[in-house]
Amino acid sequence: MKLHTQHRFHPISNKNVKIKDCFWSPRLDINRRNTIPFEYHQCKNTGRIDAFHLDWETGKKVPHIFWDSDVAKWIEAASYSLHHNPDSDLEQLVDQVIELIASAQQKDGYLNIYYTAVKPEARWTDLEGGHELYCAGHMIEGAVAYFQSTGKRKLLDVVCRYADYIDQVFGKEPAKLHGYPGHPEIELALVKLYRVTNEERYLRLSEYFVNERGQQPNYFENERKLRNQNGFLRHVIDQLDDLTISEYHQSHQPVREQNEAVGHSVRAMYLYSAMADLAYELKDESLYEACKRLWNNLAQKRMYITGGIGSAERNEGFTYDYDLPNLTSYSETCAAIGLVFWNHRLVQLECDGRYTDLLERALYNAVLAGVSLDGRKFFYANPLESQGEFHRSEWFDVACCPPNIARLLASLGEYIYSQTDQELAVHLFIQSNVEASLSGQNIRLHQETSFPWDSTIKLTINTDKATKFGLNLRIPGWAPCFQILINNEEQVNVEVVKGYAKLDRVWENGDQIELILDMPVVRTYAHPNVRDCVGKVAIQRGPIVYCLEEVDNKVPLHQVVLPEESQFHAIYQETLLDGVVKLIARAIVYDDEKNADLYRTEKPKLTECQVQAIPYFAWDNRAPGSMAVWIREQK
Amino acid sequence: MKLHTQHRFHPISNKNVKIKDCFWSPRLDINRRNTIPFEYHQCKNTGRIDAFHLDWETGKKVPHIFWDSDVAKWIEAASYSLHHNPDSDLEQLVDQVIELIASAQQKDGYLNIYYTAVKPEARWTDLEGGHELYCAGHMIEGAVAYFQSTGKRKLLDVVCRYADYIDQVFGKEPAKLHGYPGHPEIELALVKLYRVTNEERYLRLSEYFVNERGQQPNYFENERKLRNQNGFLRHVIDQLDDLTISEYHQSHQPVREQNEAVGHSVRAMYLYSAMADLAYELKDESLYEACKRLWNNLAQKRMYITGGIGSAERNEGFTYDYDLPNLTSYSETCAAIGLVFWNHRLVQLECDGRYTDLLERALYNAVLAGVSLDGRKFFYANPLESQGEFHRSEWFDVACCPPNIARLLASLGEYIYSQTDQELAVHLFIQSNVEASLSGQNIRLHQETSFPWDSTIKLTINTDKATKFGLNLRIPGWAPCFQILINNEEQVNVEVVKGYAKLDRVWENGDQIELILDMPVVRTYAHPNVRDCVGKVAIQRGPIVYCLEEVDNKVPLHQVVLPEESQFHAIYQETLLDGVVKLIARAIVYDDEKNADLYRTEKPKLTECQVQAIPYFAWDNRAPGSMAVWIREQK
Repeated sequence: MKLHTQHRFHPISNKNVKIKDCFWSPRLDINRRNTIPFEYHQCKNTGRIDAFHLDWETGKKVPHIFWDSDVAKWIEAASYSLHHNPDSDLEQLVDQVIELIASAQQKDGYLNIYYTAVKPEARWTDLEGGHELYCAGHMIEGAVAYFQSTGKRKLLDVVCRYADYIDQVFGKEPAKLHGYPGHPEIELALVKLYRVTNEERYLRLSEYFVNERGQQPNYFENERKLRNQNGFLRHVIDQLDDLTISEYHQSHQPVREQNEAVGHSVRAMYLYSAMADLAYELKDESLYEACKRLWNNLAQKRMYITGGIGSAERNEGFTYDYDLPNLTSYSETCAAIGLVFWNHRLVQLECDGRYTDLLERALYNAVLAGVSLDGRKFFYANPLESQGEFHRSEWFDVACCPPNIARLLASLGEYIYSQTDQELAVHLFIQSNVEASLSGQNIRLHQETSFPWDSTIKLTINTDKATKFGLNLRIPGWAPCFQILINNEEQVNVEVVKGYAKLDRVWENGDQIELILDMPVVRTYAHPNVRDCVGKVAIQRGPIVYCLEEVDNKVPLHQVVLPEESQFHAIYQETLLDGVVKLIARAIVYDDEKNADLYRTEKPKLTECQVQAIPYFAWDNRAPGSMAVWIREQK
Repeated sequence: MKLHTQHRFHPISNKNVKIKDCFWSPRLDINRRNTIPFEYHQCKNTGRIDAFHLDWETGKKVPHIFWDSDVAKWIEAASYSLHHNPDSDLEQLVDQVIELIASAQQKDGYLNIYYTAVKPEARWTDLEGGHELYCAGHMIEGAVAYFQSTGKRKLLDVVCRYADYIDQVFGKEPAKLHGYPGHPEIELALVKLYRVTNEERYLRLSEYFVNERGQQPNYFENERKLRNQNGFLRHVIDQLDDLTISEYHQSHQPVREQNEAVGHSVRAMYLYSAMADLAYELKDESLYEACKRLWNNLAQKRMYITGGIGSAERNEGFTYDYDLPNLTSYSETCAAIGLVFWNHRLVQLECDGRYTDLLERALYNAVLAGVSLDGRKFFYANPLESQGEFHRSEWFDVACCPPNIARLLASLGEYIYSQTDQELAVHLFIQSNVEASLSGQNIRLHQETSFPWDSTIKLTINTDKATKFGLNLRIPGWAPCFQILINNEEQVNVEVVKGYAKLDRVWENGDQIELILDMPVVRTYAHPNVRDCVGKVAIQRGPIVYCLEEVDNKVPLHQVVLPEESQFHAIYQETLLDGVVKLIARAIVYDDEKNADLYRTEKPKLTECQVQAIPYFAWDNRAPGSMAVWIREQK
């Protein structure tokens, strides 16, 4: 594929998309009313905000090396929230925090709590583990979001000065440091900064960081030696050996040579997102090719059915092909969010429904499970099976996930539609209104649907004059068949290209497009190389992955067997978990054999029962207990 | 049951049992020729023997707190080996080592490398973790064995002086320490010392240690406080919290109140063995009742099918009912050996085949797997499933298992027969000759069998005059039916009491008893509460548990499915693993779907194959690879 010959899409901004639906709107309200204020208080109470006073002194609690990023992500989330919900109190609060952050910027432009207040002598000595550039990246993202939301330049100016300084420190030139971040993030942030400022140096700096990664000699190896000489701490988890550490931060190879998703999965997602950004901006096919190889490896061999990624706690990341244990799945919330970021970028590069399918899978399952229904408790890891001991927490010492999910939800509108000059793409089925300029005409589109509980989608076009443009309507991979009606007339022979129905015509005001997707309850099987899933099925309906929870099923979940012929019945229940479609089926379990022998030659006896499944994202919101996504099946 | 009304059996000494069979004899030869000399060299090369010079000085490698016990267990193994294989070189070597050990004894009788050479100021300050009394116990066992084998008193005198000193230090009296060992061992050793010396103080000291354990206030809690004040190290694994630490060393309750097998499994087995010893010597029914409750919990809820015990590495021990993971099974070799010790004691108390069944299960599976076919490599843990990364080692820093298995194998003869004055019990089916005095007459019995590969057992009585005595012939729990012939005449209506056929009559010279056991290949199911085994079967033939190994089965073992109707064929193959009965069956596996989707709605396709199973004890003796005991089954 030649990128420069492509019609490249770009997302329609969250500002121009107004969500008003049955599923997401209540969640976005909770995110705005509960999560964002709650996270501010957590940042405040734990000292993360006041740490920008830089008044740390020996004996006081040491600011963590990535406290800056928690506050920055909170600013980003608050900024998106202001798009559709002006809130002067919130805006004033952000302004105050920004004043404080600005006051922490050093004369040379440097801005970092830990390496200014605690260890100033160690600046740039631990790119591998110190998270300086990671924090800088999040501050840039926060600044860009706040500027775009409010037009206020204060933080944007701060991060531009910081980026200018970073650009003087890092780069190819002999006098500069030839390093790059141990935790990718600034690379994608610099592309955002470039887009909002048009300053090409930011794009080039991002390009430099991405290209330099994994080159020989490995920067981090030299850095380690120097750091040892200076007696500085290495901020990297200890249990990795030197062989896996370079994979841990994806510096084992130059990025264009990487074929497998390895290492820390959040780092991987942020890096791959930046690679997609640069492929887009620089029309760099080799970067897109690398993304595709990495995507294929991840999607075909290293991803949970929930869109969760990262099989091991040890490295918070990938292990090896088909190693996807359910009980010990790491599947960090931030990694699933990163998977959404990456696939959102890929689908702009190439309008391929495989990317949207993956984005949707992660969004409705691994991401959404990350936050409780009340918006005040969070999963860091997201196992696919629990024996009852695993629950959400109000906060974490390493608190990356809570503000990450807040900023994603607050900007959800941005993920629904994309456009070129002549085309509109509908990626997600979320009831909403969108405005876009297509073929020079201001077009308003209303999407009406009760997705994901129902799978009929109605689009109504509102235009002052009839306009020719292409409508790319996603046909999800999970739908066995579909039907499209335009103004109540069934369309046969609709061309579907890479998962998108192509409807290119002159659209008139009031035109109605109806997409009816078949959304049966299906049993999904894993590749038999996935040890934990052999002989088991997962239940899905549309993008929603289901699970059994102990609170609904008073039998040991590991004993439940689904007969092959047993049918699931989908029932919407408004009173259950704020309203979900639950699934009911006949199943069998073992007899309760309290005093039976531990080992015996008689086959254990089975008895009939009924099981109830709920959406995975909603688990652990009621009485604590065991949970399972993968259920045993038999003939 | 009233113990004092029972005919109590006692084991017929290894000295009086000559094993000569197809299965064990080659193993005992390897134990004598390879393992025992090899272990001496390991003890020598790692400094364990020379440490008795007590010349440790700062900067040199610190002797481990239980090095004494490794050498003592080697002495014990060597002593048993001398029973049937006089070897002046070996005896001289043991004499030299004993000289050295004797030279390390302090004037007051104390004898311990670490607490004499390294931390003399800390003597008796860390009963919980310091292993002083544990080392003393093993030294006593070694001394008793060497005395019984050679008649030489040198080491026996040393340990008597040591025990006398310990008896002055510990006890009920106010001036004595009211402690007991963190790792039980000396309790059973003191009973052995009592039996060989007739010194009742040793029995009473053992009784004191067992009775004091778990009393309030908890000795170890006070000891910890004192040790903290003195700044002494606590030699106990760190990852246990204070709640589980008392269960870890079975000091959570007085022993007579204990109902569940908890904590470190080797500690549990040595404690329970001492409880059985004391129940026997003191006719203490309450101790036997406690043993029975613990036995029921262990055998019905906390034991692997191999007779392995201990589900978790964290505490090297028990966790909770039915928690028996295969891949992460700890199942320490020493714990299975301890299970043999305990059940061997129980069956003397009460001739109940359930004890012998368990002893046999552990012996032929978990214990025997602990050593390689060449006798030079050892498992510490014995998982029931491996993904290919788990292999035996030549030695361990904590080297309890290698000499433990050596001493058990060298004394195997002792486990085959028991007697009272008028009765003989045949517990194990091992071709051998035994001599015993029954009803005042010297009786010789010849047992002829190819067990465990064949299950016909012939016993021939050799006596100078016809003698009335009871023959208790074990009918194993695994045999669905059996037949007994006396002088070729089938015996109908044989009375079987608790797993033993009772043949009480006047026996004449040349009388032949033939026991024909049915020993089909059977599928064994686990209680459905065992998560890892649901939907799976283990294959057994007699006491032998089978497994699949990758080297024989070129398919992913987790994918193998045994159809319910598939029959196993047992074939003896002399060239395989020094001669074993292997099992062959038709099975099904998944198609090799290299490029198939990770998740899909189509059921994975199955294809026929043949699988070969080998005895579990023999795994990891050929090419490294995966292994599985529990195999999926389907209709």
